[in-house]
Amino acid sequence: MVGKFKRLLIGRPMKSAEIEGEKLNKLKALAVLSSDALSSVAYGTEQILIVLMAAGFTALWYSVPISLGVLGLLLILILSYRQTIFAYPTGGGAYIVAKNNLGVHTGLLAGGSLLVDYILTVAVSSSAGTDAITSAFPSLHDHRVLISLTMILFLTIMNLRGITESASVLALPVYLFVVSIFVLIISGVVKYFTGGVHAAVPEMSTTVSNISLFLILKAFSSGCSALTGVEAVSNAIPNFKKPAERNAAATLVMMGTILGAMFIGISLLAYWYGIAPSEKETVVSQIANATFGRGFIYYFIQGVTALILFLAANTAYSAFPLLAFMLAKDKFMPRMFMVRGDRLGFSNGIINLGVLSALLVIVFNGDTENLIPLYALGVFIPFTLSQLGMMVRWIKLKPSGWLGRFIVNTIGMLTTLTISLIFVFTKFSQIWMVFFFLPFVIFIFIQTKRHYENTADQLRIDLARDKPLIKGNTIVVPIAGITQVVKQSLGYAKSVTDNVVAVYVGFNDEEIERMEKKWEEWDPGVRLIVLRSSYRSIIRPLIKFVDTVEWKTAETDHITVLIPQFITKHWWQHILHNQTSLLLRAYLFNRKDVVIATVPYHLNK
Amino acid sequence: MVGKFKRLLIGRPMKSAEIEGEKLNKLKALAVLSSDALSSVAYGTEQILIVLMAAGFTALWYSVPISLGVLGLLLILILSYRQTIFAYPTGGGAYIVAKNNLGVHTGLLAGGSLLVDYILTVAVSSSAGTDAITSAFPSLHDHRVLISLTMILFLTIMNLRGITESASVLALPVYLFVVSIFVLIISGVVKYFTGGVHAAVPEMSTTVSNISLFLILKAFSSGCSALTGVEAVSNAIPNFKKPAERNAAATLVMMGTILGAMFIGISLLAYWYGIAPSEKETVVSQIANATFGRGFIYYFIQGVTALILFLAANTAYSAFPLLAFMLAKDKFMPRMFMVRGDRLGFSNGIINLGVLSALLVIVFNGDTENLIPLYALGVFIPFTLSQLGMMVRWIKLKPSGWLGRFIVNTIGMLTTLTISLIFVFTKFSQIWMVFFFLPFVIFIFIQTKRHYENTADQLRIDLARDKPLIKGNTIVVPIAGITQVVKQSLGYAKSVTDNVVAVYVGFNDEEIERMEKKWEEWDPGVRLIVLRSSYRSIIRPLIKFVDTVEWKTAETDHITVLIPQFITKHWWQHILHNQTSLLLRAYLFNRKDVVIATVPYHLNK
Repeated sequence: MVGKFKRLLIGRPMKSAEIEGEKLNKLKALAVLSSDALSSVAYGTEQILIVLMAAGFTALWYSVPISLGVLGLLLILILSYRQTIFAYPTGGGAYIVAKNNLGVHTGLLAGGSLLVDYILTVAVSSSAGTDAITSAFPSLHDHRVLISLTMILFLTIMNLRGITESASVLALPVYLFVVSIFVLIISGVVKYFTGGVHAAVPEMSTTVSNISLFLILKAFSSGCSALTGVEAVSNAIPNFKKPAERNAAATLVMMGTILGAMFIGISLLAYWYGIAPSEKETVVSQIANATFGRGFIYYFIQGVTALILFLAANTAYSAFPLLAFMLAKDKFMPRMFMVRGDRLGFSNGIINLGVLSALLVIVFNGDTENLIPLYALGVFIPFTLSQLGMMVRWIKLKPSGWLGRFIVNTIGMLTTLTISLIFVFTKFSQIWMVFFFLPFVIFIFIQTKRHYENTADQLRIDLARDKPLIKGNTIVVPIAGITQVVKQSLGYAKSVTDNVVAVYVGFNDEEIERMEKKWEEWDPGVRLIVLRSSYRSIIRPLIKFVDTVEWKTAETDHITVLIPQFITKHWWQHILHNQTSLLLRAYLFNRKDVVIATVPYHLNK
Repeated sequence: MVGKFKRLLIGRPMKSAEIEGEKLNKLKALAVLSSDALSSVAYGTEQILIVLMAAGFTALWYSVPISLGVLGLLLILILSYRQTIFAYPTGGGAYIVAKNNLGVHTGLLAGGSLLVDYILTVAVSSSAGTDAITSAFPSLHDHRVLISLTMILFLTIMNLRGITESASVLALPVYLFVVSIFVLIISGVVKYFTGGVHAAVPEMSTTVSNISLFLILKAFSSGCSALTGVEAVSNAIPNFKKPAERNAAATLVMMGTILGAMFIGISLLAYWYGIAPSEKETVVSQIANATFGRGFIYYFIQGVTALILFLAANTAYSAFPLLAFMLAKDKFMPRMFMVRGDRLGFSNGIINLGVLSALLVIVFNGDTENLIPLYALGVFIPFTLSQLGMMVRWIKLKPSGWLGRFIVNTIGMLTTLTISLIFVFTKFSQIWMVFFFLPFVIFIFIQTKRHYENTADQLRIDLARDKPLIKGNTIVVPIAGITQVVKQSLGYAKSVTDNVVAVYVGFNDEEIERMEKKWEEWDPGVRLIVLRSSYRSIIRPLIKFVDTVEWKTAETDHITVLIPQFITKHWWQHILHNQTSLLLRAYLFNRKDVVIATVPYHLNK
């Protein structure tokens, strides 16, 4: 039943060799990996305007130079990451680059930030997408958490089905979004230059008395939230069709170009149309409204905007499992993240990401706006470390033309470092927890690795000297009566050794006497030991008895506790029987060095 | 840790022989068993007045004759049940009496009604008690569910501690309630006859035009809710100190006398004071207010009233586990209800009652008033069946003077049957579900018994002919590598038999080749079989291999699958390792007739 349901949801299992067919070409990769970056257009400009609004309407013209600054930053990042892709064709995520060039702990810092960040991506994007929907249809407002969770569930199932199929589903909305935004920008620009706009516009270069450097920096760092998601491509190189690095680099440049054009277009239109940020309506919605009015095109743009925000969450579904796989391969995360599921995706990573982000949505009741700065900082820490790593790499390897590349990465590193510091100084109240949970995550990574290493040490064998050891056998069979199950268990025990002893725990004298008499009558050729329990516990006297046997024979014999057990035909019938044997097994298993064996007796009605 | 916490909550374990010290004397029994019945005074009169109010204030005088009718009914019930106690000194609950005299299915009908009813008692009483508190302190109104659940938790823990101790805690409030109500009645009567009351009183015997027989019957049946709980004593005879039946009968008569006096006292005062039912204030509160004013005595009466409603729930904690024990002894309920816990109470019954009633409170959000008619009907069905059973018994046994007793039980039976029918006709909308869930409960009882009987049939042994069967041994050891755990497991296997085979599942050719080479180098004296898995599943190829071994050797050999397993030092380290062995064990356990053995290897760091 469960198996069939699983098949229906995620499809037939696939052979390991089928993996090449699941790889991405450039256009599909653009759809799968760029939705996070591209969707930032939906809120990047707005984030800048919200901060500037604190200094009044006339300060809004600063959004144009700030947007140009963000555009410049984007250019630097794209150039810098392009170098990384070619240097690390097998996957150049911040974790790998930082670990290889700056040491394991720095790598873990980058990896930990990214891992947490991917969870935030899913939570923030799905909530933001839900907000977009509920802004358009206020009656859905009470169901925000449910809508977000539904989307997360949908994305999780899609990704469990496999990469290619989800790409097919997800490609269309991404392209529609890109086309819609370009149509909006072009129409808006045409309308502006044909004089169709009559709005009050803050004059460029006006000196605004109460604007401070702090405010401008804060607005700039807010605008940088438009750059989240740029790193997705370099993390996902192994998912590309061959030649993976060329395809990845081309995808990165395509994505950067589209993102840059859309971002500066929206920012310019927002300035020309004199748009101020509003709690009730997004900036993109205001521009669309001013350009087309509230007709079909307006609703279409709003719709694809909501959709791409959901899809942004999907980027994390590609990136999180891959990063978890790399960390697990280095033993910093549980081994289960290395297992490919039936459909060749890293199912455990996908499921963990879905569950954790769903928890965030539930805990924050769908209001994850306050997580945005944390989310942006979580991206810029690995940005910085990754580029620092590349700098170290150029100095170490010094390939031909290394100096130019070194300079590109240095500029990139200094820029992202500066932005990270701006985040810390201007938005400390929203990001302070990063200083607690990042060390905690790194601590867990290190403990995990230590555990795996300890385990390996203890399990390691000297092939030349460590050989299996042959000993005698003593078997203890706890029994509750004389039944078919007991007969079967004793038969097995006697087939193994002659040192078999049956143990019975009685609660009062009559019970014990009756048992002894019946045993004598049966005469199975096995000695019966009877224990008396005043406290109505079966397990405690049995454990004590096993202790005694261990003390007497452990040196010469393997001690086996053989538990007779019948298995009911239907699982629910199980609750009708006392679970003493399960408890006994669990106790012995965790505390004692005895072999635990079960002879199952299957009931057939 | 868990163990220590348990000790703190419920006290040290007690020996089976300590049980006599836990038995109840008459006064303690009155406290433990009568709170349900006595607390009915808090709402019995009010239930009558609410129904009569539908015909107007002038109709309220009917409450006096109706109360007298209920009093008569109480007398009949007490006499009838007194006979039951002497006839069934080992516990004469409706289940036993009906089963013995009317057949098993009728007994199950009575037992099922009572079982469900005890759960309703806890839910209704704890909610009603909470309502009393929140009426006095409206600020607590938002926390009603929490207060009810806290009370249920408290009662559950008290009862897990054991009968005597909870009796000590519970005796005082019951006596305080009885004393308070009598003080209220006496003061009220004195005030009335000294002319201190000046209220409009509906004149006795006025003909009220719009009153119907239906309404009077409905009011009467509502008043009968004051009789719930009367059966508790006859169910709990085994809990009494010896001579149990005399003590139980005396307790029953005491309880009946107190209940009758309080009920008629409150009804008369309500009439004399001209009190009309109000949504905001209970009838008892109105009488107390009219008699004493809102002073200390008033609040004291309100307080003990709330308290006794909580304690009413406690009656069910004595009755439910005992009835569940009796049903389990007859194999109609799971065996676990027969196990006495550390403190000699039937812990499973107590815990199940607590959980189920807590669920009812949560599902109904603390508004369980609508369950009251259901609850009353659930009492009158077993009342009727029990007395019908007694009638059959007198006819069968015909002891000296049986005719008088027969007549008493017949009158009792006819009365309660009539009331049950009145319930069905006047309150069908609130009790219809009883016709669905009672058959369902009885169906479950019968299925449970059938399962136990089937199991016993299949496990039964012929002592003379069924002897343990000695066969050969074949051991299959699934391995994932060459480690200390594998060495230990192979050592054990070789100690048992020479037919040992190790099985390795590889995912690709390199893996398999490496393993085969290493095995050759180690040379443990055991043959290695290598399986190849295209779908990355370890379990499926292993199961197929076991199938093959079974097919070849099951006739001559016991087949053992020996699973090497290391146990981490701390339980949480477990999640760092793949759980393949657990899955394999679970699968084999449920599907295959092979012995499953585990050689635990305990890691020490």
